[in-house]
Amino acid sequence: MNFSMILYILGWILEFEAGFMLLPCIVAAVYGEEQGIVYFMVAVISAFIGFWIVRKKPKNKVFYTREGFVVVALSWLLLSFVGALPFIFTGEIPKIEDALFEIVSGFTTTGASILTDVEALSHTSLFWRSFTHWIGGMGVLVFILAILPMTGGYNMHLMRAESPGHQVGKLVPRVRESAMILYKIYFVLTLSQIIILLIAGMPLFDSLTLSFGTAGTGGFGIRNDGIASYTYAQQTIITIFMAVFGVNFGVYFLIVQKKFKQAVKAEEVRYYLCVLITATLIIAVNIKDMFSSFGEALHHSAFQVSSIMTTTGYSTVDFDLWPSEAKTILVLLMFIGACSGSTGGGMKVSRILILAKTIKKELLSLIHPRSIKKIQIEGRVIEHEVLRSVNVFFAAFMLIVAGSVFLISFDGCDFSTNFTAVAATINNIGPGLSKVGPMTNYSHFSAFSKLVLIFDMLIGRLEVFPMLLLITPATWKKG
Amino acid sequence: MNFSMILYILGWILEFEAGFMLLPCIVAAVYGEEQGIVYFMVAVISAFIGFWIVRKKPKNKVFYTREGFVVVALSWLLLSFVGALPFIFTGEIPKIEDALFEIVSGFTTTGASILTDVEALSHTSLFWRSFTHWIGGMGVLVFILAILPMTGGYNMHLMRAESPGHQVGKLVPRVRESAMILYKIYFVLTLSQIIILLIAGMPLFDSLTLSFGTAGTGGFGIRNDGIASYTYAQQTIITIFMAVFGVNFGVYFLIVQKKFKQAVKAEEVRYYLCVLITATLIIAVNIKDMFSSFGEALHHSAFQVSSIMTTTGYSTVDFDLWPSEAKTILVLLMFIGACSGSTGGGMKVSRILILAKTIKKELLSLIHPRSIKKIQIEGRVIEHEVLRSVNVFFAAFMLIVAGSVFLISFDGCDFSTNFTAVAATINNIGPGLSKVGPMTNYSHFSAFSKLVLIFDMLIGRLEVFPMLLLITPATWKKG
Repeated sequence: MNFSMILYILGWILEFEAGFMLLPCIVAAVYGEEQGIVYFMVAVISAFIGFWIVRKKPKNKVFYTREGFVVVALSWLLLSFVGALPFIFTGEIPKIEDALFEIVSGFTTTGASILTDVEALSHTSLFWRSFTHWIGGMGVLVFILAILPMTGGYNMHLMRAESPGHQVGKLVPRVRESAMILYKIYFVLTLSQIIILLIAGMPLFDSLTLSFGTAGTGGFGIRNDGIASYTYAQQTIITIFMAVFGVNFGVYFLIVQKKFKQAVKAEEVRYYLCVLITATLIIAVNIKDMFSSFGEALHHSAFQVSSIMTTTGYSTVDFDLWPSEAKTILVLLMFIGACSGSTGGGMKVSRILILAKTIKKELLSLIHPRSIKKIQIEGRVIEHEVLRSVNVFFAAFMLIVAGSVFLISFDGCDFSTNFTAVAATINNIGPGLSKVGPMTNYSHFSAFSKLVLIFDMLIGRLEVFPMLLLITPATWKKG
Repeated sequence: MNFSMILYILGWILEFEAGFMLLPCIVAAVYGEEQGIVYFMVAVISAFIGFWIVRKKPKNKVFYTREGFVVVALSWLLLSFVGALPFIFTGEIPKIEDALFEIVSGFTTTGASILTDVEALSHTSLFWRSFTHWIGGMGVLVFILAILPMTGGYNMHLMRAESPGHQVGKLVPRVRESAMILYKIYFVLTLSQIIILLIAGMPLFDSLTLSFGTAGTGGFGIRNDGIASYTYAQQTIITIFMAVFGVNFGVYFLIVQKKFKQAVKAEEVRYYLCVLITATLIIAVNIKDMFSSFGEALHHSAFQVSSIMTTTGYSTVDFDLWPSEAKTILVLLMFIGACSGSTGGGMKVSRILILAKTIKKELLSLIHPRSIKKIQIEGRVIEHEVLRSVNVFFAAFMLIVAGSVFLISFDGCDFSTNFTAVAATINNIGPGLSKVGPMTNYSHFSAFSKLVLIFDMLIGRLEVFPMLLLITPATWKKG
């Protein structure tokens, strides 16, 4: 294990986090809030320690997959720890497990909160909370790769460990260029949403924070009733942008390159839209009696489906009061999640697609034992290695869900609460059902359960393996 | 597809089912119940049609995996259809979907009932209901293989498709001998339980039916309060025998052969017992305040854990009233299930073990990319084919669970009910939680939901692939 290289990257994490924290300082200056001083102090100390670590580059640049996964896991832990400090020092979230829960929920773009009164927070902290969604959505290491002129084979390992989906988010041969393209698309889309929301009459602060939450598919709101009190037009804009950020960014890259034919062919995106529309229609029919018109039911159904499937987690109504059928569909959508290569969480449409194709292939091989067919997506053969890793991912994911439900059941909540709390955190959604429904929060869990759910959020965002490697003893043995 | 051969085997199914139905006729004679006439008529007609089909052996004996899986699926459907007829014609369960649900629940050893008043049934029907557990537990085709001198390569295909677990239940090189050994062990163990229950003072009828239910890990009781009103000694005997029937029968074969060292080494059985004991202790501590002494809590905890993990489904108390932690553990045990090569359902301990080892191997390969390690159980390497099939099984199983929960959610029950109803049927357990808890039943579901759950019971008992092949169009195409 190349510890000096790992430490070097962690140093850069501190440097970048210090940079990120200057934004809430500006917000504090605008609103004249004294919390800004705390953010500034944390940023300065973080920058100082980071500078001390990165002042010289390590000589040993040997860097394998193992280091890549470990450094990604450690980066996110460090990012969260430092990010939680302002919450504690301003006294706005005094308990350490609560502050950590809130910030991990932010960076992992989960959006689950332990706050009973969001509006009591300062603008500074509200901004920081939402901005972590934006950083976490595309990935902090991908950001560093895009900015820093790092050379060496480790770039790929980092990108591989942090990017969502079964394939690496490589758009062009060079990793740094890919990272830059991704962030450019991300930035332009976010900016578009902010401008359109402003045109629709939303205040600037709300437009900024809600767009960060949408872009990262996070879900932290800044009002106690979530998105309920905004106008229908504003809600619809958010509905559309949530769906947009759930699409594989590779498709946008194709569109930028004017390769429209290839973009339309994207198999995963077609299934994604298909599920999105079907679920919206079924739920709209199911809930129509709860609203004054079918149009209104459709509006709320589209918002909620888009929110849950892209794993954002915003809500306009208390869907915990919806009929069982609608709720069940939402729980299933939680696990499917968005497209790979998007900012969304969940297992990803492509993985479900690969699993379904694997089952079909198994059946065909029972019917025709001698035929050898390869699994294809968009005409490209899925390699055996990918298939195995998708299968292992699925098994590990489900076993972690089962284990987590078991561990948090000691708090004595009902099965619906326990199951959907785990589903909503490991899939990076936010609200679940029952006691963790959209109009409630996670404050009632014990510190131990909160730690389990923090672990689940990181497992979900980093897609299982980095966090598991971190706690596997063999990782730390020589050899 | 060799249709003449498939029909031939289905003919034998009819013959054997006619034979099985003579037993409830004897019960009717003893108790002087007129329902016996219906059973006798159905048996005679079934025997007659069966005889007409099997009177000459087909010439074309070509028989592949495909035919094996299809014939097993069709056999179980035919078995269930004919087995349900007496319920309908006696008027004891007049609706066809209810009668089918009850009998499929019997044959698949699920033990889920749509009856609100079990005690209203005649002794004849109660006996038949419980006896189907005994037939279904070890498998009807395995029984036919053991009795009939069939020759040809298809034996193996049949046994493979009907036996539970990831490996074929072959104990000795010849399939017929393996089938006979399995049934001998099965018979001796069942007889032992009957005798011991009789010694403990249980009436003969109860001893017979409850032993059938235990042996097949079924769970149909003959009293409205399940096993609650029997003595503690009798309950303890059932606890022990449930655990005994959840063990891989290969281990008993080793014991018969006096290969004690090998028997003790069985890795799956050790994990099985480990989970059984751990879960019992945790639950006992969790529920101790609900009972007058820790011993009593331990008694009921052991009974319920043994019942759920082996997928039997008997109950001595209403565990739906237990605290959330205990209930969550029971739900997790449902999915683990018993050992492969036992009469129990669920995913089987061995599959979970293989999945866990696959995850561990994946982590190690990330740490040491060049090391190639094979997964082993009891020192034997698990072949790539087995690994793939276990992975595909797991994915298919979970996707069917998700799809079924979605389909039955249209009835409007809560999430706990829907989820545990599917879990309790696909894992062949019986009782779930909430509205399908141990003191309630499945009668409130719509006919459509009952069909979905019937499908799930068969999916669970036949381990996914035979039923899926049956509904795959490619199975029925030439070639």
